[in-house]
Amino acid sequence: MPREIKAAFVQHACSEDRSENLNASIEGIHQAAAQGANLIVLQELHNGLYFCQQENTGYFDWAESIPGPTTTALGEICRQLNVVVVASLFEKRAAGLYHNTAVVFETNGEIAGRYRKMHIPDDPGFYEKFYFTPGDLGFNPVNTSLGRLGVLVCWDQWYPEAARLMALSGAELLIYPTAIGWDPNDHETERDNQREAWIISQRAHAIANGIPVISCNRVGFEADPSGHSQGIQFWGSSFIAGPQGEILAQAPADQDMTQTTSIDLDRSDQVRRIWPFLRDRRIDAYHDILLRYRD
Amino acid sequence: MPREIKAAFVQHACSEDRSENLNASIEGIHQAAAQGANLIVLQELHNGLYFCQQENTGYFDWAESIPGPTTTALGEICRQLNVVVVASLFEKRAAGLYHNTAVVFETNGEIAGRYRKMHIPDDPGFYEKFYFTPGDLGFNPVNTSLGRLGVLVCWDQWYPEAARLMALSGAELLIYPTAIGWDPNDHETERDNQREAWIISQRAHAIANGIPVISCNRVGFEADPSGHSQGIQFWGSSFIAGPQGEILAQAPADQDMTQTTSIDLDRSDQVRRIWPFLRDRRIDAYHDILLRYRD
Repeated sequence: MPREIKAAFVQHACSEDRSENLNASIEGIHQAAAQGANLIVLQELHNGLYFCQQENTGYFDWAESIPGPTTTALGEICRQLNVVVVASLFEKRAAGLYHNTAVVFETNGEIAGRYRKMHIPDDPGFYEKFYFTPGDLGFNPVNTSLGRLGVLVCWDQWYPEAARLMALSGAELLIYPTAIGWDPNDHETERDNQREAWIISQRAHAIANGIPVISCNRVGFEADPSGHSQGIQFWGSSFIAGPQGEILAQAPADQDMTQTTSIDLDRSDQVRRIWPFLRDRRIDAYHDILLRYRD
Repeated sequence: MPREIKAAFVQHACSEDRSENLNASIEGIHQAAAQGANLIVLQELHNGLYFCQQENTGYFDWAESIPGPTTTALGEICRQLNVVVVASLFEKRAAGLYHNTAVVFETNGEIAGRYRKMHIPDDPGFYEKFYFTPGDLGFNPVNTSLGRLGVLVCWDQWYPEAARLMALSGAELLIYPTAIGWDPNDHETERDNQREAWIISQRAHAIANGIPVISCNRVGFEADPSGHSQGIQFWGSSFIAGPQGEILAQAPADQDMTQTTSIDLDRSDQVRRIWPFLRDRRIDAYHDILLRYRD
């Protein structure tokens, strides 16, 4: 198993043309492969507009089964290019039962595993609880030829519990496809705070667990079709950080970008020798983490 | 109960003269109070050199009971200045039973509560497992006239579990007295990574829990009395961040500094409305956090 991997993210804007969006992702996969990448991460719900800005039953038409047409197309590209891809999809599991799911493809095009988003947000402009049933597969890494991938999705990135459970299960990398942006009405200071907090939160998961993190977010402005809000300006800023949270690659906030960087997975072993956080966890005193609140 | 507090940290170097160190802390408390501070945080083991660079039974002489001479002196200053102080002390609980303990003083000089460091490090130059029995008081905030203080100590700062448990117990602030620094042999890149990781980790606790954080670290070079290592260059950089992890105040890496800033505790309520992380925790799926490792 190679310990040096070449990881990439494919950050792009989306439009109403769903085949064009899928093509942008596929084009990015080709670019990344040409850059030498063997692990390529797509952004959350990469093949469509972020439809959760409103609650509209019509969007359930966008969901598809896994495996399904999109996984077949992506699997074929993985096979052709000999790459591992993490792709986020709107999964239709049954009538009235949908998930926000990340699929991991092996280099032979097979599905290596999937993760169903466990933490589901619901805020003005992000009405995800309407669309996505919370995941029921737990926090389990996916084994691939490149290593054990701790795939999580977007809102999960705010939860240290999710990252920790992945690390305790032997995840060698944390991976977050995501779709997050600004309310255009917010003041610049608030925007800076939000984007910075999003980056820090994920870098901190790398640090607390001594493993690298890859986060891929979309860019571009998407109007609110309901007209109730000012829409969302997605802030891009996809990045890759090492096991001390150190930034290895980062995209701008406002441009499509496919970027590839080397990650030395053996470094995690060294970092955990100087910062042996797993050794000293007070598991005898953590029980109340299972409570909603201590009251 | 006031919702706007004025928080300060007192960052200073230590020498072999223990009364001089205590005086530096007391001088800082006076400075902070003159700046308008009503909550003042001292650095970890503020009244002495960081003795854990070697394992030497003689240092147990430095420990004292709580209450004891130092808490009496500090309590009297709190009463005089009408301030709440968080002070980290080497606690002698019984012969052969010592803790690394943070004491919280109320404005009337009484001890409001204490926290015994739960996560104890042990690394070259930081032989704390020799000196400190792991805390047995759990992760419980201390009630004061200024609010409910989530006091933790140093190595705890790397553990999201500790911060989370404090937040779940209603902590309105996280507070970390700390003593951390560089191995002078380390390359500058490694040093930058370490200091940055330390800042990010604590800012991330603020973010994940939607509450401010105050961290107070010492400065100065302290030689290793055993001569086995190159000593420690403590990196200061004490800081105060708001509930989105935004930096409100920060000290340099190499100078004594007492700094005071306003914290609006009501902002946490607003931040948790836009980022309601506590609402969506998957407590049904966190059970394995209580395991050492999932194998």
